[in-house]
Amino acid sequence: MTLEYIPSLVRPSDSKIVLLLMDGLGGLPITPGGPTELEAANTPHMDRLATEGVLGQTIPIRPGITPGSGPAHLAVFGYDPLIYDVGRGVLSASGVGIKVNPGDIAVRGNFCTKDAQGNIADRRAGRIPNEEALPLVEKLKSIQIPGVELEVKHLKEYRFTVVMRGDGLNDQIADTDPQQTGVPSLPVTATNPAAEKTAKLFQEWVDQAHEILKDQPKANGVNLRGFATNPTLPQYKDIFGLKAACVAVYPMYRGVAHLVGMEVIEFSGESPEDEFRAAEGIWKDFDFFFIHIKKTDSKGEDGDFEGKSKVIEGVDNALPKLLKLEPDVLIITGDHSTPARMKSHSWHPVPLLLWAPVTGLPDSQSTFGERACALGGIGTIPATEVMPLALAHANRLAKFGA
Amino acid sequence: MTLEYIPSLVRPSDSKIVLLLMDGLGGLPITPGGPTELEAANTPHMDRLATEGVLGQTIPIRPGITPGSGPAHLAVFGYDPLIYDVGRGVLSASGVGIKVNPGDIAVRGNFCTKDAQGNIADRRAGRIPNEEALPLVEKLKSIQIPGVELEVKHLKEYRFTVVMRGDGLNDQIADTDPQQTGVPSLPVTATNPAAEKTAKLFQEWVDQAHEILKDQPKANGVNLRGFATNPTLPQYKDIFGLKAACVAVYPMYRGVAHLVGMEVIEFSGESPEDEFRAAEGIWKDFDFFFIHIKKTDSKGEDGDFEGKSKVIEGVDNALPKLLKLEPDVLIITGDHSTPARMKSHSWHPVPLLLWAPVTGLPDSQSTFGERACALGGIGTIPATEVMPLALAHANRLAKFGA
Repeated sequence: MTLEYIPSLVRPSDSKIVLLLMDGLGGLPITPGGPTELEAANTPHMDRLATEGVLGQTIPIRPGITPGSGPAHLAVFGYDPLIYDVGRGVLSASGVGIKVNPGDIAVRGNFCTKDAQGNIADRRAGRIPNEEALPLVEKLKSIQIPGVELEVKHLKEYRFTVVMRGDGLNDQIADTDPQQTGVPSLPVTATNPAAEKTAKLFQEWVDQAHEILKDQPKANGVNLRGFATNPTLPQYKDIFGLKAACVAVYPMYRGVAHLVGMEVIEFSGESPEDEFRAAEGIWKDFDFFFIHIKKTDSKGEDGDFEGKSKVIEGVDNALPKLLKLEPDVLIITGDHSTPARMKSHSWHPVPLLLWAPVTGLPDSQSTFGERACALGGIGTIPATEVMPLALAHANRLAKFGA
Repeated sequence: MTLEYIPSLVRPSDSKIVLLLMDGLGGLPITPGGPTELEAANTPHMDRLATEGVLGQTIPIRPGITPGSGPAHLAVFGYDPLIYDVGRGVLSASGVGIKVNPGDIAVRGNFCTKDAQGNIADRRAGRIPNEEALPLVEKLKSIQIPGVELEVKHLKEYRFTVVMRGDGLNDQIADTDPQQTGVPSLPVTATNPAAEKTAKLFQEWVDQAHEILKDQPKANGVNLRGFATNPTLPQYKDIFGLKAACVAVYPMYRGVAHLVGMEVIEFSGESPEDEFRAAEGIWKDFDFFFIHIKKTDSKGEDGDFEGKSKVIEGVDNALPKLLKLEPDVLIITGDHSTPARMKSHSWHPVPLLLWAPVTGLPDSQSTFGERACALGGIGTIPATEVMPLALAHANRLAKFGA
């Protein structure tokens, strides 16, 4: 819905918007009556911004729905994930810089360990490290199939991605990973007759891969998951009139940003300071800066309550570097919640801080935390409404109607 | 959406509902950390109602969207402006008291300056003042076109409105304003074959207008924008079962109220007391009273923070007169925000006060202001949900389902 009426209202401006996204920011108390990770963190800078700005909370997809990383980011970017569906294969490939064009088929590959009977003994090949996986991926690059072009790239540890290009390909294909051990991989199977040719081509790829890997001690098999093609999302330039940059360390988030038309920035280091420095380096060239902090989510997934608080404190500590750039609008939020107590993504509302010195309507809140956000002046809004709010405060939206 | 399920639940009652709408009510602090216009105003009566009643805030269209006056009023009246589209021509004509019936075609006209080559040199004819524009509009009233009836009226400065009445007219016509200078006006062009006859008639009107204006120094041309007919909105009587009255001084708001089926009341004076007296005079004859206060918006547009507070204080001061009528439900809200600091309409949430002595669920708030409303018991709701809430508290909605 949002993307239907916003484009006609967009107007140009010199203003700068920063979306500082701490992945999995929302949390839960680890002890009854205690603070959440964000509430426990000592965040003087964010608290000042909360005092001057306005708080709220976002619903990533719909109340009660726990999002994966892809849909959660799409929602904050303004794309309702129930309308805009991006497959895992495309997310993975885009994440390592492979351009997936409409009609290309991308898929995630996992090395696995097969036993003597051909059954899966370990779905992740003992989580082999990058050093072991890289040379194997090199070997897989030698696979050739007449009539199509192939691109293979390593992702991380036991994960890689395969992209197939050619005429008449179709992504309606089921995963080959049976999601359990003690059984063989599933054959590559079309879920729609239109994809039968494509399924056959990928089966040939799998067969050749198994031949190449057959003498490996751990990674002697592969599974393919999330066959998908480029869903051709509306681009940021067109729908929001924004020249947008993505400052993110992890390929996944760089991939999603690329799909919506952000320019993915190369930079060295991976601390919040490094990311803010990267933003500084390109400050003049862009209108919108998506800065992604991964480790809040990782610590949450690890069940490391204190570690997650520390990551938040690290971001807060580096914030002056970002504020020195004087953004017109600064949004600090997450894509979803990852409470350490649950060791997983969750459906809880996500804290939202909007700071806009000129047009911000302050509320009564003076700390950045889940309970303050629930009482914030923005109220509880769908994540897809964050971008319109940011554009409004950046003086980039014209009036609706006379 | 609202209008789809509400009508089936409506039931009769003798109750009286007052919607007291202060235009552009929402504001911003003029100094960091300071109060808003509403918070700064001394409003003992509204504060008492806030204590006894319940507060909330409304989103006029969607988060971040700044509404024009037409859409903003439609939203508070219960009509989602993204669904119910009232064209600029109809709003303009209704706004100066011209009745636009279904099938009539209304359009906004702008005087412009053409150069010797016939290209537009100034799209607003040097923003000529009312004194210069009025006699020109008088001349345009002399235009006659066989087979149709014409009504022309001045709006403000270089703006006027034209309404054409006749058989088989159609509003699917493009604007003639090219939105740039150095090029000629566009011919009147139908965007749908069904409107070709109407386009020809309006072209004839434009040709005659140019002949009349050709010797004018500044306003020697016209452009037409926003061709539209009465969208035949569902009427208040039918959807809400309400006999509704509009007490408003300004033509624009009387016009929108007329479009939804309210009876527009004639009365003398234009102070809040005058408006409340007008309501008193018709109290027995209606169920619903829309009372519109314009000057909160005007002062906001002027950037007059104190003036806007004073207007609110004036309304508060007159309130006992309204309360003496003993409405069953009193809603005090705005149609949108007009912060003096921004000198314009804005997208910020709008304060909402609902007072219903019998069924009101009091919250913890005891003053009427933006920050109190952000913490109010109603929460943050779309403006289109105000009417269902009012109907419920007025005992006018039956149970949904068994």
